[in-house]
Amino acid sequence: MANRSQLQRLTITPSQCQGVQIRLTSDQEHYLLRVLRLGKGDRFIALLAEVGEAWIAQITDEGAMLSQPLEGNRELPVALSLMVALPKGNGFEEIVRCCTELGVVEFIPVISDRTLLKPSPQKVTRWRKIAQEAAEQSERIVIPTLWDPLPLKAALTPLDLNSKLGYWALARGADQHLMHHLIHNTPSESIPEIILATGPEGGWTASEVAQAREKGFQVISLGERILRAVTAPIVAASLLAAWYEQGKQP
Amino acid sequence: MANRSQLQRLTITPSQCQGVQIRLTSDQEHYLLRVLRLGKGDRFIALLAEVGEAWIAQITDEGAMLSQPLEGNRELPVALSLMVALPKGNGFEEIVRCCTELGVVEFIPVISDRTLLKPSPQKVTRWRKIAQEAAEQSERIVIPTLWDPLPLKAALTPLDLNSKLGYWALARGADQHLMHHLIHNTPSESIPEIILATGPEGGWTASEVAQAREKGFQVISLGERILRAVTAPIVAASLLAAWYEQGKQP
Repeated sequence: MANRSQLQRLTITPSQCQGVQIRLTSDQEHYLLRVLRLGKGDRFIALLAEVGEAWIAQITDEGAMLSQPLEGNRELPVALSLMVALPKGNGFEEIVRCCTELGVVEFIPVISDRTLLKPSPQKVTRWRKIAQEAAEQSERIVIPTLWDPLPLKAALTPLDLNSKLGYWALARGADQHLMHHLIHNTPSESIPEIILATGPEGGWTASEVAQAREKGFQVISLGERILRAVTAPIVAASLLAAWYEQGKQP
Repeated sequence: MANRSQLQRLTITPSQCQGVQIRLTSDQEHYLLRVLRLGKGDRFIALLAEVGEAWIAQITDEGAMLSQPLEGNRELPVALSLMVALPKGNGFEEIVRCCTELGVVEFIPVISDRTLLKPSPQKVTRWRKIAQEAAEQSERIVIPTLWDPLPLKAALTPLDLNSKLGYWALARGADQHLMHHLIHNTPSESIPEIILATGPEGGWTASEVAQAREKGFQVISLGERILRAVTAPIVAASLLAAWYEQGKQP
């Protein structure tokens, strides 16, 4: 892992840093040491999305430390997660490929009421490989995290929308366009993370949309025409990436 | 053709209309009567993009006439054309499918200096079939026009950027993001047509970019990361469609 040119990424908040020392939460420690199996001296990317910085960090005895700022940083100034109700066939491959190019840092594949696909572990391995290849091709240094598929409810329950901005894409509604929302209700600069959810073929059920509203998601439209389940997340990621990135241009 | 639920579309300007009568240009007459082989009484869609209207029109002895406003109009308020340097393999199929969903009305596949694909007539037929199917699935009434592939120079020569707004996507440049350009230099409301060009794998050559600038294209970036030739037109169409459509939402 330490020798790979591409590293796993972890979002941390500035309040976790004291000088170059990072105080890891127990969840983060578990993720780095148990899930990724990193050890002392191994490197990862610490994304301080809140302040638009990315650092190479290293595991230490006490936790981790910021080692050096990431060079040639092409990451978005926000940490963008996609929660995608799995589409039929190989559709999710296209989503992972395009949205990795667009700067997404986390994919959460969910099984919703109308999801037909029952993905095998081989599929999930293949998706992670596609994410890695797409990150390389688009010259990113961060490889997006791709969760094991899980039921929608299980994905929603631990989600805290006090610290994240949540958008929920809905077709055939009378909701504001995501672009309209971005232009007229520009979210506060201090929101470091965004999660955007898109539905399966046939869309979300009414009960799912109710759960999303209750959870605090902003329900939005992606336009007048009906987009396929594969196209919707690519369109949404295009808009969010462009909106948050365009400020960096001259 | 007249019985099909989907009709071909033609962009006309308000100045061509006198009451319900349409004075066709000789190019338009050629297109309707010779290329599409329509006859008296046959219907097509007259897109008055300049005033955001779409009508069912009918061929008459004298030219054509507006018959009735299009119901359930899901078309964009601008006529969006894509000029795409053909990507390798089947990549253009994905572009046609997604961008038809996004509301594109015209595809101009071009052979640029670095284009590797030499498309067969069968391929072109297949692309048109995909455009038709995608228009149906996304519940559009307009089927996008798909040109026969042609050399870039041949596509650029007749282009008049006095009446169209032209964007030219370039990777690895220091150009403004398309989104930045849209927000800060909002084009005049009177621009009825937009043409956006994206390059092949390996990008445009310097000479092609020079030709584009000379022609009057605005060179723009689609973000910090390197997008595949397949992803770039989908991202660009997402941004343009959202920008021009969001004003229609509540």
